[in-house]
Amino acid sequence: MNATDLVKRLLVGRKLASAQLGETLLPKRIALPVFASDALSSVAYAPDEILLTLSLAGMAGFAFSWQIALAVAAVMLIVVMSYRQTVHAYPSGGGDYEVATVNLGPTWGLVVASALLVDYVLTVAVSVSSGVQNAKAVLPFLEGNEGLWAMGLIIVLMAMNLRGVRESGTFFAIPTYGFMIGVLGMTAWGLTRILGFGEPLKAPTADYTVVGDPFFDPLLPLAAVMLLARAFSSGCAALTGVEAISNGVPAFREPKSRNAATTLAMLGGIAVTMLGGIIVLANLTGLKLVDPDGHSRFELNGVPVPDTHDTAMGQLARTIFDTFPVGFYWVVIATMVILFLAANTAFNGFPVLGSILAKDGFLPKALHTRGDRLAYSNGILALATAAAVLVMVYNASVTALIQLYVVGVFVSFTVSQFGMMRHWTRHLRTEKDPRERARMMRSRMINAIGLTGTGVVLVIVLASKFIYGAYLAVLAMAGVFLVMRGIRRHYDKVAREVAVGPVDARMLPSRVRAVIMVQEVNKPTMRAVNFARATRASSIEAVTVSIDEAETRRIVEEWDAQDLDVPLKVIASPYREVTGPFLNYVKGMRSDNPRDVVCVYIPEYVVGHWWEQILHNQTGLILKTRLNFMQGVMTTSVPYQLASSKYAFDRAQRNTAAAWRRPGTGQVRMGDARERSRPE
Amino acid sequence: MNATDLVKRLLVGRKLASAQLGETLLPKRIALPVFASDALSSVAYAPDEILLTLSLAGMAGFAFSWQIALAVAAVMLIVVMSYRQTVHAYPSGGGDYEVATVNLGPTWGLVVASALLVDYVLTVAVSVSSGVQNAKAVLPFLEGNEGLWAMGLIIVLMAMNLRGVRESGTFFAIPTYGFMIGVLGMTAWGLTRILGFGEPLKAPTADYTVVGDPFFDPLLPLAAVMLLARAFSSGCAALTGVEAISNGVPAFREPKSRNAATTLAMLGGIAVTMLGGIIVLANLTGLKLVDPDGHSRFELNGVPVPDTHDTAMGQLARTIFDTFPVGFYWVVIATMVILFLAANTAFNGFPVLGSILAKDGFLPKALHTRGDRLAYSNGILALATAAAVLVMVYNASVTALIQLYVVGVFVSFTVSQFGMMRHWTRHLRTEKDPRERARMMRSRMINAIGLTGTGVVLVIVLASKFIYGAYLAVLAMAGVFLVMRGIRRHYDKVAREVAVGPVDARMLPSRVRAVIMVQEVNKPTMRAVNFARATRASSIEAVTVSIDEAETRRIVEEWDAQDLDVPLKVIASPYREVTGPFLNYVKGMRSDNPRDVVCVYIPEYVVGHWWEQILHNQTGLILKTRLNFMQGVMTTSVPYQLASSKYAFDRAQRNTAAAWRRPGTGQVRMGDARERSRPE
Repeated sequence: MNATDLVKRLLVGRKLASAQLGETLLPKRIALPVFASDALSSVAYAPDEILLTLSLAGMAGFAFSWQIALAVAAVMLIVVMSYRQTVHAYPSGGGDYEVATVNLGPTWGLVVASALLVDYVLTVAVSVSSGVQNAKAVLPFLEGNEGLWAMGLIIVLMAMNLRGVRESGTFFAIPTYGFMIGVLGMTAWGLTRILGFGEPLKAPTADYTVVGDPFFDPLLPLAAVMLLARAFSSGCAALTGVEAISNGVPAFREPKSRNAATTLAMLGGIAVTMLGGIIVLANLTGLKLVDPDGHSRFELNGVPVPDTHDTAMGQLARTIFDTFPVGFYWVVIATMVILFLAANTAFNGFPVLGSILAKDGFLPKALHTRGDRLAYSNGILALATAAAVLVMVYNASVTALIQLYVVGVFVSFTVSQFGMMRHWTRHLRTEKDPRERARMMRSRMINAIGLTGTGVVLVIVLASKFIYGAYLAVLAMAGVFLVMRGIRRHYDKVAREVAVGPVDARMLPSRVRAVIMVQEVNKPTMRAVNFARATRASSIEAVTVSIDEAETRRIVEEWDAQDLDVPLKVIASPYREVTGPFLNYVKGMRSDNPRDVVCVYIPEYVVGHWWEQILHNQTGLILKTRLNFMQGVMTTSVPYQLASSKYAFDRAQRNTAAAWRRPGTGQVRMGDARERSRPE
Repeated sequence: MNATDLVKRLLVGRKLASAQLGETLLPKRIALPVFASDALSSVAYAPDEILLTLSLAGMAGFAFSWQIALAVAAVMLIVVMSYRQTVHAYPSGGGDYEVATVNLGPTWGLVVASALLVDYVLTVAVSVSSGVQNAKAVLPFLEGNEGLWAMGLIIVLMAMNLRGVRESGTFFAIPTYGFMIGVLGMTAWGLTRILGFGEPLKAPTADYTVVGDPFFDPLLPLAAVMLLARAFSSGCAALTGVEAISNGVPAFREPKSRNAATTLAMLGGIAVTMLGGIIVLANLTGLKLVDPDGHSRFELNGVPVPDTHDTAMGQLARTIFDTFPVGFYWVVIATMVILFLAANTAFNGFPVLGSILAKDGFLPKALHTRGDRLAYSNGILALATAAAVLVMVYNASVTALIQLYVVGVFVSFTVSQFGMMRHWTRHLRTEKDPRERARMMRSRMINAIGLTGTGVVLVIVLASKFIYGAYLAVLAMAGVFLVMRGIRRHYDKVAREVAVGPVDARMLPSRVRAVIMVQEVNKPTMRAVNFARATRASSIEAVTVSIDEAETRRIVEEWDAQDLDVPLKVIASPYREVTGPFLNYVKGMRSDNPRDVVCVYIPEYVVGHWWEQILHNQTGLILKTRLNFMQGVMTTSVPYQLASSKYAFDRAQRNTAAAWRRPGTGQVRMGDARERSRPE
């Protein structure tokens, strides 16, 4: 147990008080990196997925890359504009789940929640996988075991988050700005060299030709449209994470909403610029990618050439910084780090959403209140497990995982935009001020555009990716939705069942009959007898089950020697079983006097080691579980602390003391306890 | 739970009452097959192991086979004579464990028990493995996956024994007599054909020559002695199972001891005859075997020939019954079946010994009393698991497993014979009758010969097999010994710690203060309040931990609306944790009044499905575990049965009813309950 505690302390760190959460309000320059890593990091893989999807159409496909990038940029503009409305309307930061629940009802809220939970898992899987793929540019030994390395990274993330990494906001600033400087600097320097100095920079794959999949002949319109739709859908991965700011409004400095809206606009602008820059550079340097599953392939002078497995970011950094290796390493390392941070964003968001869902009864309620830390350990473990399974199954292939991705985010976008339209409509019903009404009408118009835009994208994403993997994401969402709805229905059913009726508070039992379970005449049994006697029950008796004649005779003699006021009854057990006859005896007592309550006292050994638990209390444990099913029976555990338990107790005490006596916030505020006694 | 119950019913069958055990006393003709299958079945592999060990010395080695067989027969004679003394002296059937414990003390008893437990595991592993190896003569597809098939057989045995196969004694008679008839008939027919009719019967391997291991040159005396010792040790596997009859004396018809002694002599005679017959036939037919690990190999005219992997039994049956295939199949199938039964013997002995050890406090006491059946499920599961691991690790290689075998049995033999000598010495001290004294002196002499004989064999076995695997068996025995001694020491320490002192029965607490844990104001909470009020505690209060302002306000209002006589206290929780603040509050109550007892009432939801358990009671569970560590605190679970529990309860009721209301033995004999009340 000691080692467990140490491990827990190392992994989980010290506790956080509720009050500590509000300590740090973020200025825009810090809020941007904190909330932007997810959205910006997708620049590391979205261009790749656009290009390698287009490669299925052969050389002709790459010509469409800038159009796809423009389309993604247009969607980004729409989404950013829409979420600026949300940020102003819901400064509490509830995000899409709150917007949907408030405006469309709990079912739609749950749809959004399911979509987001699944997408958080995919964010981790895709970001970590992309990080490993990008890292291969400098660490070639990763090749072949990408899945394992990705799982290792997920375990590191999990451990970091169980420790509670949220404490440091500036922690995010350096790598995020580093990534922005790296990518934007590379773009600027590349454009300067090519367009300004006229240098003929060529990507490593510039001389290759690409042979596509014959199915996607660019001359067949339907196939071409399908391919463009898939490329666009993959590119839309750049949109994920944009909603993060709308969840984080409370963390901004005042004026919160305005600062958040500005940061959102900045984020959108930077993301689009970076995406566009990479696509332009890819076109200028002749960069090409092929499908890793072999549906398209490289050729050089008509001879097949193996896939380089180099990412667009890696190729560009190598090409543009060919004379400046520091720049190359800067870009590659910053890319790896920001992808790691993006995965970390999900590790923050997932358990917070899980906790909100637990509070609303969609997940086990214990998740909301239990746990050492505000970052809820169970959520972190669940997220890490699910993401680890995904990266292992798909061996960290971004191209495979991206087929499942994006669906959830656009479900959430679309439902949320619809919710915002209802929000404005509802407010317009009561608002009289014409200027305010005009503002609301404008917001509603923007959200209508947002609804249309994101809805169309959702349809395109579903249609173009469904058979390639999106169906799995849809199934997962449906599964999560059904489980959560089932849990809520269970809680609702139970709540109805246990609602206090008019007589419940008056149903005082007429008598309490105490029964003490005796297996040996020893101190634990004596304590149980004494405690039972102290409660002054209406009747009191000890009961032992005879499984061995001689043994029973000894127990009876020892009992008599104690000269107690309590009779000992012996029950025969033809099957040498203890629980069955005992339960039957208690049942007999019950049916004799239905208005009585039977209280069964069970002596319990408290031990210090888990293996001692195997040697004691087994019979009592089974008995308690079975007695619970009987009406009008309560069981009282009378613990007897063995010497070995002292150490365990002292340790628990120390831990509790350390946690509760920390100055400032840790003190148990017993003074706050509102004591409202009535005369008895 | 329903499916679990069904599976349990199918696997475990109906319960057995203590009384049912004595129902069937065995006549000798049934007792012999019941107790002999283990000892007789070793004829299926002991000759093989003798021959293939000798093959390491090349062709010259086989010349020693009949001398080895004679040595084994001599040991058999000694052991049978010795155990005839035990059978008369200990008619209770306690076996070697009882003999050692009574005469040499509990430590030696535990040595014997450890040795026997390990040997039971090896009996299962070796018998099942040999069964699979023998079965290959008719089922060649077993080749290559012997380990898996052996594990499958062990699982079948486990299931059979969980159902309780002991019920049928005649069940053993047919295959055991079938095996005896098969092997003795084959021997007789073979000898008649070869010696009577002068037919030149040749085993399939008769024309091969065997190339041995150069290390075991028969001209080097030390190497030759080592090899003969190993061959003899492997042959001693024929001795295992002889002690079974001494454990089973109570199952014989009167006069129990004499019948058991006669059966023991018959068993020894039959086993030696069968072993000798096979060795003689092997010599006459030119049968040869080689080491499966390749230390010796076949050659035909100087050219290497692959190993046939055919057992001696299989080769002989093929040769002698070459014109009578029914005989061939009879022998092979009877061999398989008796090996299966031999493994089954261990499945009977192991859990019985485990139960005796549990009663003596060397294993968790719950094992002695719990469990649906007299055949103790836990022991069966442990035995099956250990044996399955062995056959998988050694891929059911009898030659590998035999290196670990026999050690345990001879440890048990030797210690037991020493115990018997002490037994007679002790009795001679008080015995006056000269004829009785003469009988005892004679018995003591026989046991002295037994001690010398088995002790020498034990040394030979250890010396010749230690590095080949016997060390693993010794390590396992030591491990089992240490664990069991540790358990006993723990129980002893606890017993001393909890022994009732002069004042324990008088330490009545001065006051009982009731605390009710409140998380919601609902029926379960109301029931806890009413039950607590019914116990008439000195003081009574309800406590709720505030993790959410609004929530707490609602609870307080609902509480007030109930207008109870019980005050509700609210405890602040800065960390949104329930257990910590609650525990601290209870601790505070305790330190205020050290002579009081605090009784914490915890409302508990009783649910019908395991998954509902995840959704409820988590906080209460943690609380109870932690409260147990506090002195002077008892916890009372007040169960509230949700509607879903009704079904589970009804099912449990039905099962209990079925078990306890079976006519004849099942009735709970409440009339027997000795009720001894005193005036209160």
